[in-house]
Amino acid sequence: MEYRYQRRVQFYETDLAGIVHFSWFPRYMEEAEHAMWRAAGLSITPAGLDIGFARVSVSVEFHAPLFFEEEFQVHVRIAAISRRSIRYACAITRGDTKIATGTMAAVCVQRRPGETFRAVEIPAEVVDRLKS
Amino acid sequence: MEYRYQRRVQFYETDLAGIVHFSWFPRYMEEAEHAMWRAAGLSITPAGLDIGFARVSVSVEFHAPLFFEEEFQVHVRIAAISRRSIRYACAITRGDTKIATGTMAAVCVQRRPGETFRAVEIPAEVVDRLKS
Amino acid sequence: MEYRYQRRVQFYETDLAGIVHFSWFPRYMEEAEHAMWRAAGLSITPAGLDIGFARVSVSVEFHAPLFFEEEFQVHVRIAAISRRSIRYACAITRGDTKIATGTMAAVCVQRRPGETFRAVEIPAEVVDRLKS
Amino acid sequence: MEYRYQRRVQFYETDLAGIVHFSWFPRYMEEAEHAMWRAAGLSITPAGLDIGFARVSVSVEFHAPLFFEEEFQVHVRIAAISRRSIRYACAITRGDTKIATGTMAAVCVQRRPGETFRAVEIPAEVVDRLKS
Repeated sequence: MEYRYQRRVQFYETDLAGIVHFSWFPRYMEEAEHAMWRAAGLSITPAGLDIGFARVSVSVEFHAPLFFEEEFQVHVRIAAISRRSIRYACAITRGDTKIATGTMAAVCVQRRPGETFRAVEIPAEVVDRLKS
Repeated sequence: MEYRYQRRVQFYETDLAGIVHFSWFPRYMEEAEHAMWRAAGLSITPAGLDIGFARVSVSVEFHAPLFFEEEFQVHVRIAAISRRSIRYACAITRGDTKIATGTMAAVCVQRRPGETFRAVEIPAEVVDRLKS
Repeated sequence: MEYRYQRRVQFYETDLAGIVHFSWFPRYMEEAEHAMWRAAGLSITPAGLDIGFARVSVSVEFHAPLFFEEEFQVHVRIAAISRRSIRYACAITRGDTKIATGTMAAVCVQRRPGETFRAVEIPAEVVDRLKS
Repeated sequence: MEYRYQRRVQFYETDLAGIVHFSWFPRYMEEAEHAMWRAAGLSITPAGLDIGFARVSVSVEFHAPLFFEEEFQVHVRIAAISRRSIRYACAITRGDTKIATGTMAAVCVQRRPGETFRAVEIPAEVVDRLKS
């Protein structure tokens, strides 16, 4: 599964160098991820379930700067899905210009009040919807 | 009760105008508020209790810009405390320069899973510690 | 002039209380402000001009919490415009529910490298476009 | 060169899962980087020079969650320094618990108004101070 997410740079995302601060790219990638889940009829925080997805890793390579008010696209796709974890590959572009590329991985965890997160299997319905 | 909180401007807090973006001032004020609570032996999210503090209002007036790496102070004091709410007055300064002044108010609420926040009385111990 | 801006709550905008952190509301208001400027054919950072708009004040009152993935509207309108400053009034709603109301004011400043901001008159073309 | 940076988790850094949102870790790493530069008598944005450092890459692996008000350390060290770029290795710990590990790389660029960033050599004085 893959998804194209459209976004515009906000003023507070820029820094004194006049470009988007690099810490916003993981957020852009997550926005696209969650939009993809919604497009699949899912939510990353499913109501009534005590599961969630904890980040295992994130990496971003920066190719060109992004400026205030520019429109850009985040292309996200599922690079791998195992019993307990999902890995995404992302590409951020402005028109034909490659701005950044990145990866994110998350593991399905059970969250119970007062307990440590524990890795569990991704619900079958979630896997089905993300694979279609 | 009052408290003086010391802080330095971080790179990601600046915007393309080369100054701290105004949305950081409510955060600076909250950092000082929570530091004051810790100085009083308290936490804004008390362990084992289902209460919290929900913002009712915030206001900030800006007098001078703040720049990257500058050190500044946030002076916070309790301007009023009633049975269910607390109002703070804040002043942000860099040396003798007045940067910003602001107010924040919060109401004590009961938080129960799946329920709406409901205003409740501030625990007596909290009031005692904040008034001393 | 007024504008209605549509937005969805992102994951990183929530806090441990499970709701949008109050510091995001000034950002939502600014997003709407800049979208209104774009709708008027303007940019808050006009290319080729050495002027900008420095915040003078911001205030927000919170009426109801906002949750992850919820869609909401920011209604922004120019409450007053003088020779050098603009004041906005904002209302944030989720359907028929009033979430927050706020105000923001900004003053037009000249920005020259190495110099302090100096209040100047808002260019006539900007005033014309914002008033139409 | 290496540096140990002490920090406390702020309320607005947590998300609805009750832990620090993963997008804050690149920021924590950058805070430690800039503190190391200050400890070396440098600033990442040297006054009077038209150079800066543009991010080339960032990666973080997450080992354990970090919670509100917890104190943690960011250990940053220069893993490699070439004529035009610097690579950092970071470890984020809370006491003996390993929270996250990461890397960042930046390239020295010339910034001139209206021009594209252009990679240039890191000034000799900067290299000397960072290597001592």
